[in-house]
Amino acid sequence: MKRLVYLDNAATTQPFPEVLDAMIPYYSRYYGNPSSGYELGEESKRAMSLSRKWIADTLQVAPETIYFTSGGTESDNWALMFAVSASKKRAPHIITTAIEHHAILNTCKNLEKSGVRVTYLPVNRNGIVLPEHVERAIRPDTVLISVMYANNEIGSIQPIRKIAEIAHRRKVLFHTDAVQAYGQIPILVKEEGIDLLSASGHKFNGPKGTGFLYARQGLKLQPMIHGGGQERKMRSGTENVPGIVGIGMAARCSAEILEKKMRYEKRLQNYLIDRILTEIPESCLNGSRTKRLPNNINISIAGINGPAVVALLDLEGICASSASACSAGIQKASHVQLAIGKSEQQAYEAIRFTLGVHNTREELDYTVDVLKQCVKRLRESSGCHEV
Amino acid sequence: MKRLVYLDNAATTQPFPEVLDAMIPYYSRYYGNPSSGYELGEESKRAMSLSRKWIADTLQVAPETIYFTSGGTESDNWALMFAVSASKKRAPHIITTAIEHHAILNTCKNLEKSGVRVTYLPVNRNGIVLPEHVERAIRPDTVLISVMYANNEIGSIQPIRKIAEIAHRRKVLFHTDAVQAYGQIPILVKEEGIDLLSASGHKFNGPKGTGFLYARQGLKLQPMIHGGGQERKMRSGTENVPGIVGIGMAARCSAEILEKKMRYEKRLQNYLIDRILTEIPESCLNGSRTKRLPNNINISIAGINGPAVVALLDLEGICASSASACSAGIQKASHVQLAIGKSEQQAYEAIRFTLGVHNTREELDYTVDVLKQCVKRLRESSGCHEV
Repeated sequence: MKRLVYLDNAATTQPFPEVLDAMIPYYSRYYGNPSSGYELGEESKRAMSLSRKWIADTLQVAPETIYFTSGGTESDNWALMFAVSASKKRAPHIITTAIEHHAILNTCKNLEKSGVRVTYLPVNRNGIVLPEHVERAIRPDTVLISVMYANNEIGSIQPIRKIAEIAHRRKVLFHTDAVQAYGQIPILVKEEGIDLLSASGHKFNGPKGTGFLYARQGLKLQPMIHGGGQERKMRSGTENVPGIVGIGMAARCSAEILEKKMRYEKRLQNYLIDRILTEIPESCLNGSRTKRLPNNINISIAGINGPAVVALLDLEGICASSASACSAGIQKASHVQLAIGKSEQQAYEAIRFTLGVHNTREELDYTVDVLKQCVKRLRESSGCHEV
Repeated sequence: MKRLVYLDNAATTQPFPEVLDAMIPYYSRYYGNPSSGYELGEESKRAMSLSRKWIADTLQVAPETIYFTSGGTESDNWALMFAVSASKKRAPHIITTAIEHHAILNTCKNLEKSGVRVTYLPVNRNGIVLPEHVERAIRPDTVLISVMYANNEIGSIQPIRKIAEIAHRRKVLFHTDAVQAYGQIPILVKEEGIDLLSASGHKFNGPKGTGFLYARQGLKLQPMIHGGGQERKMRSGTENVPGIVGIGMAARCSAEILEKKMRYEKRLQNYLIDRILTEIPESCLNGSRTKRLPNNINISIAGINGPAVVALLDLEGICASSASACSAGIQKASHVQLAIGKSEQQAYEAIRFTLGVHNTREELDYTVDVLKQCVKRLRESSGCHEV
């Protein structure tokens, strides 16, 4: 069998064995509907409560602030729609950034059709939004500031605490899409002043099709999906009990290993960055070196085509990404690369490696060797870069 | 261990072993993001395509007409919101029925807040909506008729073909919430003239947290959840690959056994109805005897309290329901029982048993015996019915 070196952990992760082990009984033996009136349903309800508590514990918040959803995208859509509909303004204003995930950007674009105004803030060369830009963008009709916790392509960590502080001083709601950050770095929602936070299970070794929205206590959340009144009337639909059990276990496992995992990934990250930048001419790191998720390496290599590199790496069993995997096969210059000042052509030169706790230094050695060959091959065939 | 007689298959079902077997590899080995550019992701994409095809085959439609969602509730919300937003009318009109699931009713209620007008059609004593009532309710601003395929509480099957025919003649879109019907009785969406159909995986021995929306070819569907553009730009969010594999397998397995299952359940259904009506005085069947899902038995027993019976049955290991389990613990007289002409008190006298292919006649014998004892006990303690 071909070896597999999985370096696309920002696209999705392999569930922890503990996650699958925890889920299976809820697919087989404990299949009751949590809303039913008998013991079998109570078992589902108990499992959900425990999962909610585990997640709440990782954020140091009350379990009632956690609402289960079908994923990060639903959570993002919900947060934005809620802010707009709760405001009751005719043309509410949202502040967000140019480097958000499409779950935010395309929801904003859709809201604009119905009269919502949106400011898309620029970022600096490191992919960081400046708090003073946020402050300046606030208008009397601003109802929400939504800034991602960390970027999915270049891993840049945003100054969330400062932005939240500004939002609260100006009495504006603050949401963060923490899909890439939750489970990877510590987040303390209360201390940091976050009102709403989105997370996705499959990004931290939980199951796909699961996520949650945190909404701070006292916030009068409104539902986006209506029906039987599950999740304290906030998110209807029979609960995905096995999925909820899985995301809870993933949150718990991730929190348990967080410090160790971060240190480990940081070492691997530095090792991979240094080797690539040293050994591949005309390569550069995209995004901040320091304000960066410990699992993200995003490199541009002059004159090569990112998707072509990804395809060549795949032939050798290495999974990487040329931009965000969430763009469902659309070949378009990355809006994140453009936002940090790259040209359209340069945007296609980027390759992203995202680490997980299972990756080894040996895998990275193998990856660098293969990558060097790929780059050589591509540069030779294009003839425009002789190195 | 206590014996378990599960007679609440309309609330949720136990996944088929084949379903879990099919899913597990996509939680463990094949965890790739279907939108990624390498082989591991391609495997996920292939699995999704196969699942989509299996579902499409059961409805005899093209795979492109199937959009995966997080469940029946999301599908229902989507269908209604789409019809409203696509109409571009200022105050569009929707026709639905008084006995719909809350996923329809509460979405309608929410839409009414933003100016949508809704007609909730009555049903007859058997819980069936009359096509002539539908026809009469149509107005120039009517944009959607949404009638459930079969009712979740009393199992009444609606005259879908006739209603769809009226809708098309009057150029109105037709949606059916088939959450209780799909996988239980044959549905041929094209022949029956259905434009949009909602289904839920966990109602036909698939996983919770999965569902689909069928939208007929040529319909310019619009997304409800925005983001990375998955599901051909119609439903964003990283696909729940294991869940999608599971719902596809459940659809396939259900279709394979459908005829046999229906015959089997029909026999059990008749047996249970006859025994209860014969052996428990002042009991009656709610809903039509003939236009009825083969797995649904809904009985009212004069002078007893449904939830109390459910609790007593649970002590003997029998899972049943006093109304819809989807109402998340809210004690409220069933809107379905009220719609078929019951008083508020009578509405609380209903008990629902819903069969699955795994139930046996022996289990029903046990259930009738226990039920008789429960009724005796409750009637004695209330003192108002000496039998």
